[in-house]
Amino acid sequence: MCNTVAVEHTPRDRWTEAPGQLPPHAVAWLRRRTGLADVRTPVRPPDVPGSELADTARIALEAVVGPGHVRVDRDSRLGRAGGLSYLDLLRRRGVGGLAVPDAVVLPADPEQVVAVLRTCAEHDVAVVPFGGGTSVVGGVTALRGDKAAVIALDLARLDRLVSVDPVSRVAVLQAGLPAPEADRLLAAHGLTTGHVPQSYERATIGGFAATRSAGQASSGYGRFEDLVEGVRLATPVGEWRLGVAPASAAGPDLRHLVVGSEGVLGVITEVALRVRPRPAVERYEAFAVSGWERGTAVVRRLAQRRVLADVTRLSDVDETGVALALAGGLRTTALKAYLRARGVTDPCLLVLGWHGATAAEVRRRRRETLRGLRLVPLGRVVGEAWRHGRFNGPRQRDALLEIGACVETLETATHWSRLSELRTAVREALVDALGECVVMCHVSHAYETGASLYFTVLAARSADPVGQWQVAKAAAAEAVAGLGTISHHHAVGVDHAPYLEAEVGPLGVAVLTSAKRVLDPTGVLNPGKLIPGGLASRGDR
Amino acid sequence: MCNTVAVEHTPRDRWTEAPGQLPPHAVAWLRRRTGLADVRTPVRPPDVPGSELADTARIALEAVVGPGHVRVDRDSRLGRAGGLSYLDLLRRRGVGGLAVPDAVVLPADPEQVVAVLRTCAEHDVAVVPFGGGTSVVGGVTALRGDKAAVIALDLARLDRLVSVDPVSRVAVLQAGLPAPEADRLLAAHGLTTGHVPQSYERATIGGFAATRSAGQASSGYGRFEDLVEGVRLATPVGEWRLGVAPASAAGPDLRHLVVGSEGVLGVITEVALRVRPRPAVERYEAFAVSGWERGTAVVRRLAQRRVLADVTRLSDVDETGVALALAGGLRTTALKAYLRARGVTDPCLLVLGWHGATAAEVRRRRRETLRGLRLVPLGRVVGEAWRHGRFNGPRQRDALLEIGACVETLETATHWSRLSELRTAVREALVDALGECVVMCHVSHAYETGASLYFTVLAARSADPVGQWQVAKAAAAEAVAGLGTISHHHAVGVDHAPYLEAEVGPLGVAVLTSAKRVLDPTGVLNPGKLIPGGLASRGDR
Repeated sequence: MCNTVAVEHTPRDRWTEAPGQLPPHAVAWLRRRTGLADVRTPVRPPDVPGSELADTARIALEAVVGPGHVRVDRDSRLGRAGGLSYLDLLRRRGVGGLAVPDAVVLPADPEQVVAVLRTCAEHDVAVVPFGGGTSVVGGVTALRGDKAAVIALDLARLDRLVSVDPVSRVAVLQAGLPAPEADRLLAAHGLTTGHVPQSYERATIGGFAATRSAGQASSGYGRFEDLVEGVRLATPVGEWRLGVAPASAAGPDLRHLVVGSEGVLGVITEVALRVRPRPAVERYEAFAVSGWERGTAVVRRLAQRRVLADVTRLSDVDETGVALALAGGLRTTALKAYLRARGVTDPCLLVLGWHGATAAEVRRRRRETLRGLRLVPLGRVVGEAWRHGRFNGPRQRDALLEIGACVETLETATHWSRLSELRTAVREALVDALGECVVMCHVSHAYETGASLYFTVLAARSADPVGQWQVAKAAAAEAVAGLGTISHHHAVGVDHAPYLEAEVGPLGVAVLTSAKRVLDPTGVLNPGKLIPGGLASRGDR
Repeated sequence: MCNTVAVEHTPRDRWTEAPGQLPPHAVAWLRRRTGLADVRTPVRPPDVPGSELADTARIALEAVVGPGHVRVDRDSRLGRAGGLSYLDLLRRRGVGGLAVPDAVVLPADPEQVVAVLRTCAEHDVAVVPFGGGTSVVGGVTALRGDKAAVIALDLARLDRLVSVDPVSRVAVLQAGLPAPEADRLLAAHGLTTGHVPQSYERATIGGFAATRSAGQASSGYGRFEDLVEGVRLATPVGEWRLGVAPASAAGPDLRHLVVGSEGVLGVITEVALRVRPRPAVERYEAFAVSGWERGTAVVRRLAQRRVLADVTRLSDVDETGVALALAGGLRTTALKAYLRARGVTDPCLLVLGWHGATAAEVRRRRRETLRGLRLVPLGRVVGEAWRHGRFNGPRQRDALLEIGACVETLETATHWSRLSELRTAVREALVDALGECVVMCHVSHAYETGASLYFTVLAARSADPVGQWQVAKAAAAEAVAGLGTISHHHAVGVDHAPYLEAEVGPLGVAVLTSAKRVLDPTGVLNPGKLIPGGLASRGDR
């Protein structure tokens, strides 16, 4: 029943990829829409101060993981300095201060992770768990809190498929496995997690669990938390294992306290995941719906009839307009005429994707989804185009940064009856804060009772780019408060910590703080993240 | 969007129902199988000591809820003395000591519940939240811990459908609503929770949430925890509200700390539930499968293909044999011949039930479920017979108690690959402990990765009935440990508390204890339940 598969590990330098290219007509369009000037912002390398890790601590850590796996060189440290938020990217370009860890520690297995955490607690060294480094909310920022030093605990060597139970369809995966590698290992057993977020190419299994990730096919496969059957958590006070059955009434489901704990309560080292057979057939197709209200009514109907496609993604009129504009020239004109002839005046793009074991199964499911809907087909070519470009967002953002754009995303979720109100409130907050800008929105995760909203913002970068975005982000967060959640799948990190109390109440914060006191009594774990005033969560509040 | 509906409240005496009747051939069969003697155990009324609630506390509570809603009379107190476990029923017959609350307090609304808890904390009075009183694990036993007195906090007056959001399909229901009443109120809006456990006729919305209940149609509607969109928890330190969106990544999902907290962390006063349209069509049908292994393979296949019927229930050979025996005489003989002719030598009964908006929808779903299976049909009459008798278990148990039987149920869950091992282990433990007995088992909740197992045990009551069952229960619990969960939907209560640490680890217990310290600093809430050594969970460990 158990198959153990190990792979060679080569730590990647995560920051050497070339940025994506933007076609000239897209740049021209962006200049028209945002007033972006034709200037390139000079990029200067960020300051990297010397490591402040004490020799005694370094030697103790080396005793745990081996000398080669405690790194204090500049490149290793810079490679784990922060995540992929817009502000992170600016900091890497020398704008604003970049927090750099004092060392990078690479444990080999779950036992070594526990020993590293014990050592850090003994030496009063802060620990930032580091997987793919794709956080866009400051979740991996190398904050040290009140500690003398901070290490990045890189989980890259925890890269094993530990076991597969093909009967129960449960696979145990180590936390440091990047998603594509996890899928490659599972594919050898004909299985998949089905978890495909935009960060797929870099993000790791442990990161998905720590942040309650949701993939682009969440309508079919569920959110990552829905896949978690069991979890193994390393803490400074020992290891905590949970999950003996698919469902239980043995008290509160404590797996849900570990999932989403963002490295603040412990370090997830392994997860047991519900897996499914790899689909033999995938079919993606695009449709147009006239207007946001009709579009969301269609998605709601599919969710409430429980016939959602595995991928279900509705763009608002603005996002659809941008896609049309960027298609360029004749294609845009022809498409607009096609839509007008079919009564679609405010087109919203709807991408649907079905997975199945056979073409017949996919056809059957497609028929169930489309039954009774009158959608204007845009064809499989458009659907497949979305599929092939679905991981391009981060690369395009790099290219946009190059030409002086302010570009960021943010997301939320709420119940259906408040979805349009929430979208309008966030849009208006962003436009008020940024002035001339493009705000696009889509629904990519639908539930019977509500849906997510994902916004992409484009503006010309101001002379104070950090301040410019902070004002806009705060305005959006204030607009969300009371109407929806501060994050549907990006997590809390540093950026959303000030808003958590409004969402879970002072008792929620107090309960999280009390759990942290039990599991991390000296407060070495990921200071400043998740828990509001998290730097003070060391037992002194 | 919001509709407020209030109903008149008449507290029910929960203990006056007549026990069900057993047909003579069933009694004869039971005597043959268990050696049950033809003697009636004399029933004597339980001792009810005088109330020890101090006058100061009583007056303070009356100031909160009104004088008529603090009851110290014998019948009120006896009516809230414990739940419906076999041992509870024995205690009510004068066997073993019965814990009786010193008073019954009936608050009118969530605010009064908070005020009652504050008052109890001030006066050091223990509080046992009381809904339908259907716990079979001692969850409502009137333990006082180290407090001078204990009250039953009866939530019967919290009986409102607070609001309905028909667009999002979310309804806010108060905790004290009995399930049938909740469904009646929702039916006025064309909606239902779909939550139908065996305790349906008495159990309440708050109890379902506090114990992570699972209904007989959980395959279609989900477990109760899957329905909970939001929750309102009263605690001695104030109110805690959670749930602003269907899904979120704003830290750990703290709703899952409240759901399943069994009155130990607070008192659930309202829940926002995902609801669905009431099905216009229901179709129940029975089939036979040859042998347990083949039967569970069928259910597993349905779960993993995601085409389960809303109700999916597989009895093992023993449970099926009992059903056949009790059908009686000619019917049994004819049925056996019918099955033998179709190659079914060890019949396992499989009941499937589909719900839908139209007959066509039900037909379509039935076709999906049955596609590729070769089941021997037993017809709709047998399926409907199961449906009509599905709440009879508790009544039949009363009748069995009358004739001197030891009768109890217990349940667990695990992953598919260990399901048969777990069933065998529990069966053998029970048979070893009880000797001549009948042990029946069914799967009634199936997941992609595993399933529940529900056991019913029948034996002749011994001279020491309490000790007899305690030995059997402990043997079964030991058999479960390491193979599955100590409870799939009955919860922890008093009975399973000794086994919780083995399941969630010492860190799990420590985290629960720390949350309790935050929410219930003086430890008045439901002493002795859920948390192992719960009587010591007052900050002194």
